[in-house]
Amino acid sequence: MKIARFSHGETISFGIVDEEEHELVVLKADPMFAGYEPTGERVALADAKLLAPVIPRSKVVAVGRNYREHAEEMGGEAPAEPLLFLKPNTSVIGPGDAIVLPPESAQVEFEGELAVVIGRVARRVSEADAESVIFGYTIANDVTARDLQRRDGQWTRAKGFDTFCPLGPLIETDVDLANGEITTSVNGTRHQHGRFADMVHSVAKIVSYASDVFTLLPGDVILTGTPAGVGTIVDGDSVEVAVSGLGSLVNPVREAPAR
Amino acid sequence: MKIARFSHGETISFGIVDEEEHELVVLKADPMFAGYEPTGERVALADAKLLAPVIPRSKVVAVGRNYREHAEEMGGEAPAEPLLFLKPNTSVIGPGDAIVLPPESAQVEFEGELAVVIGRVARRVSEADAESVIFGYTIANDVTARDLQRRDGQWTRAKGFDTFCPLGPLIETDVDLANGEITTSVNGTRHQHGRFADMVHSVAKIVSYASDVFTLLPGDVILTGTPAGVGTIVDGDSVEVAVSGLGSLVNPVREAPAR
Repeated sequence: MKIARFSHGETISFGIVDEEEHELVVLKADPMFAGYEPTGERVALADAKLLAPVIPRSKVVAVGRNYREHAEEMGGEAPAEPLLFLKPNTSVIGPGDAIVLPPESAQVEFEGELAVVIGRVARRVSEADAESVIFGYTIANDVTARDLQRRDGQWTRAKGFDTFCPLGPLIETDVDLANGEITTSVNGTRHQHGRFADMVHSVAKIVSYASDVFTLLPGDVILTGTPAGVGTIVDGDSVEVAVSGLGSLVNPVREAPAR
Repeated sequence: MKIARFSHGETISFGIVDEEEHELVVLKADPMFAGYEPTGERVALADAKLLAPVIPRSKVVAVGRNYREHAEEMGGEAPAEPLLFLKPNTSVIGPGDAIVLPPESAQVEFEGELAVVIGRVARRVSEADAESVIFGYTIANDVTARDLQRRDGQWTRAKGFDTFCPLGPLIETDVDLANGEITTSVNGTRHQHGRFADMVHSVAKIVSYASDVFTLLPGDVILTGTPAGVGTIVDGDSVEVAVSGLGSLVNPVREAPAR
């Protein structure tokens, strides 16, 4: 099932995507908390502006170097345990929103990733039980100021700027992790391609490991790492991250306005 | 003015501390958003349980190595720019709540810090204007699993465990940054002592710098770094962080219960 958060006129709603009719079945409230009760209304997909499908109240957790070839291109090895970092919820934007290049960086890069959306309070959940706390999956771009990442050592600033966490376009409650693939393209040229089966640490492992550190709350988002092929984006680019079964997350890239 | 968030019976309220009468002047709502409208009710301080005075909806930003002697005891120099990292809001506890030692670490340490509470949306605010976005100040303990901090490289896990961000006991809207001091004691023995005037980067600089990266939201908290003298805490300890004019933040330390 595909779930969207969208604006239509002046209203922001949640809806289930009816792919045959190209419509959204409008829900009474956020299904993560209120279930799937329809209002009876339907909105044509063409008339809706899709928004980030979730804004975490608590945290965006991310994992570094979770595909071996990407760890190598970063000049290191994949870590024995998931390497966690945080992105603030103020970095989240939706599909179609602009990634804004901050003047502090001369090297902003894309990182296409599969994102897990947590649906239940989770504390020290086992790998075997991890699936039970997952609400669904979406696509993320873990935008990174590579020069600042190297300079600072800590990745918080490099990965935390406003607009550096595009999410969307939808939440899919059921994803084929065994056969799923992800690709990232800039202006139509493919740069990244990865198979989820090639993750160093599985989705279940990452969720379990993160829940050993922090209590995970409904609406928390976990980014599962990026495959090899990262590269720079500049003003005017269009970045597309595509995941089999989840569609495409497309964002334009813009220079920050002069101050 | 001193502001508390507290529970009394089954109700959680905000109040202004009347230090002469040892009472709380109960407010209608969170003064950060709703101003200082009293309900007319008063509660004796002795009858109230003080809670963390703020739970950030967005982020706890923290600064590493912001006192020169602490940077040296960590084996490095103070960085030329503030070194930012994030703690999740799930790590926040209040005064008197237990710091729980996770089984993953054999070396959990205290770090007493002055904390800034942001009161207004702030984006690229100048140092000169930083004070205008500050709601007040409180005390923090930036609890850190030192062994995991060294092992992981990224500090997220080491500083992000549940209970690793005690905040409180109150928010003081007006603090003497020029002459203020902070001390941290364990079981009554003083380990840390610092003067705010000795911060490498001032509060105004830190707020300005952080706002260049992230939009700061009302309720965001910024920890301003710890002075020299950090040390290990173990089951049964009591940690007290005291700031002139802000009182003391006291937390017991407990082993995690066996699973």
